[in-house]
Amino acid sequence: MVNAIEWVDGRIIMLDQSKLPFEVVFIECTDYRQVAEGIKKLWIRGAPAIGIATAMGIALGAQDIKADNFKEFMKGLEPVVNEMLSTRPTAVNIKWAVERINIFLREKRGESVNRLKELLIDEAKKILKEDVEVNKAIGKWGAELIKDGNTILTHCNAGALATGGYGTATAPMLVAREQGKKFEVIVDETRPVLQGARLTTWELMQEGIPVTLITDNTAGALMKMGTIDLVIVGTDRTARNGDVANKIGTYTLSVLCKEHKIPFYVAAPLSSIDFSISSGKYIPIEERGSEEVTHIFGKCQIAPDGVRVRNIAFDVTPHKYVTAIITEKGIFKPGDIKKLKKANINLEEVRFKP
Amino acid sequence: MVNAIEWVDGRIIMLDQSKLPFEVVFIECTDYRQVAEGIKKLWIRGAPAIGIATAMGIALGAQDIKADNFKEFMKGLEPVVNEMLSTRPTAVNIKWAVERINIFLREKRGESVNRLKELLIDEAKKILKEDVEVNKAIGKWGAELIKDGNTILTHCNAGALATGGYGTATAPMLVAREQGKKFEVIVDETRPVLQGARLTTWELMQEGIPVTLITDNTAGALMKMGTIDLVIVGTDRTARNGDVANKIGTYTLSVLCKEHKIPFYVAAPLSSIDFSISSGKYIPIEERGSEEVTHIFGKCQIAPDGVRVRNIAFDVTPHKYVTAIITEKGIFKPGDIKKLKKANINLEEVRFKP
Repeated sequence: MVNAIEWVDGRIIMLDQSKLPFEVVFIECTDYRQVAEGIKKLWIRGAPAIGIATAMGIALGAQDIKADNFKEFMKGLEPVVNEMLSTRPTAVNIKWAVERINIFLREKRGESVNRLKELLIDEAKKILKEDVEVNKAIGKWGAELIKDGNTILTHCNAGALATGGYGTATAPMLVAREQGKKFEVIVDETRPVLQGARLTTWELMQEGIPVTLITDNTAGALMKMGTIDLVIVGTDRTARNGDVANKIGTYTLSVLCKEHKIPFYVAAPLSSIDFSISSGKYIPIEERGSEEVTHIFGKCQIAPDGVRVRNIAFDVTPHKYVTAIITEKGIFKPGDIKKLKKANINLEEVRFKP
Repeated sequence: MVNAIEWVDGRIIMLDQSKLPFEVVFIECTDYRQVAEGIKKLWIRGAPAIGIATAMGIALGAQDIKADNFKEFMKGLEPVVNEMLSTRPTAVNIKWAVERINIFLREKRGESVNRLKELLIDEAKKILKEDVEVNKAIGKWGAELIKDGNTILTHCNAGALATGGYGTATAPMLVAREQGKKFEVIVDETRPVLQGARLTTWELMQEGIPVTLITDNTAGALMKMGTIDLVIVGTDRTARNGDVANKIGTYTLSVLCKEHKIPFYVAAPLSSIDFSISSGKYIPIEERGSEEVTHIFGKCQIAPDGVRVRNIAFDVTPHKYVTAIITEKGIFKPGDIKKLKKANINLEEVRFKP
């Protein structure tokens, strides 16, 4: 399976996901501004992947800083960090990566500037490696929720492409398959950017997992027919109370799940949980330009010239609609994830029992 | 406003709606098989409009029948009628038009074959004219549901293009506007065929009604924000118990309305109510080819080659989710529409009070 992002010989190699599944094109970034552009233009997307891209972008930007001491170095890093923070508002992983790098650098403040530059590269690579481990752990926990013969619905792409590898929402599927379970996946196409149609179908087809594409309008009808056994989605940011921001349309799925008594699971690495906010109402929601709606891939026009559009990129699913959240530490009811920040917690007692 | 279908000098002039809003192309049908093709290929669509097309197609097909008497004439008409009935399964208006023509012809069996051919043309034109009157009446009743400052959500196209004129779901909007009310309309793009994005936006923009286009995924988020005051949709077939078949995605909207306590109205001319079936489970649901999903307008590919697709064209909204049904005879709770078939009914007593 191709990697969404890699650090190779002082450059960042990024798969241009906006061209998938028709062209597999890699972009070589030698300037951190290219990385920021890639995040904005959705060459790279998915909360964990843009967290990794943020760390790598900062490491790349750091290489060009002329500084004699730690203070100067940190000053030089400011525009790089700000550029990264300005890319997309909803995913918390950008902020998470910036905070992790900040803490890391403060710990290493005694090192020389040249050594700091090296260390930043190592740390960015480590974030990528850890992400894959986290996703495998999510997969191990989440696979328990998948039974032989199940049909799983997913929305958008929370697959390998959205992460360092393995995916978040797809990780339980990959592990369940390794365990020999037979199941099918139904993928919402996920308008406007069609991550489901373009990316999730492509990933799962490459893995040989049976996958069926539907329009976003079709999920409700299939639930009413009894076709869907469970829903697993990813998240761009989850608040401390378990409110989940994810791709637009996720909230609608959660309401449909409630109506049809179908479990609604969110795969959320701890890096995507924003413990600093008490509820989803503090999650900034990105609104994007109208052209994503009116022109498929910027070229295939589907609506009259000049039509007014609202292109809200994310929605917030209140915790009451979320059956449980799958993390690398186990599965938890949304009301219990705040306990993960407590010291001396006995996870076994807190974990969700399906 | 352009007409979806007209009878002009022995031919049927049909607007090719599959090319809207980019090209306004009329197709001149001189053979009933072209009319059937037009219904199948969605040059004309919308339950009332394809009812009109059915009647006109039969009238057109009748002109070429060589027959000496009524029995021979009816025999000659059989393949024409069967061709029309084979086009699309879900909309009841095709069946409705065929039954109306059958009853009409049996009443006129004493007429000469040449006279029958003329009478069929008159009857088809009458069906068109009556449809416009019906829609205006729906508009008059439905306008009572629209308050100054409201934002109305609609799905697919139940506008003038779906009818002889005026539309069904749009008729209350047009009348409310004539009454000087100020309101806005939000239109779901309605994947896969994008009737909302292409047709409803275009119609309402031509009428100068403020309209905003959203992806189908966005309706839930807007409802949660409190943006939507009411939903009005059309129907392809409504059962006697008030179960409503309409474009895929309608059912999801109705569930969202229930969750947000938003009224969910269906504009349904009596011609679209199938009093012969007791519930929605007897409505055949058309499944269409995968290309409508994988290729926008048959050309803009959005999913990997060979991906499996389910393209369910309609869904059934159970009557419990329907606040009321707007007909030309007034507005009724779904449980009350069966009373419209009773003799000596006092409509005033049965009508829905919002």
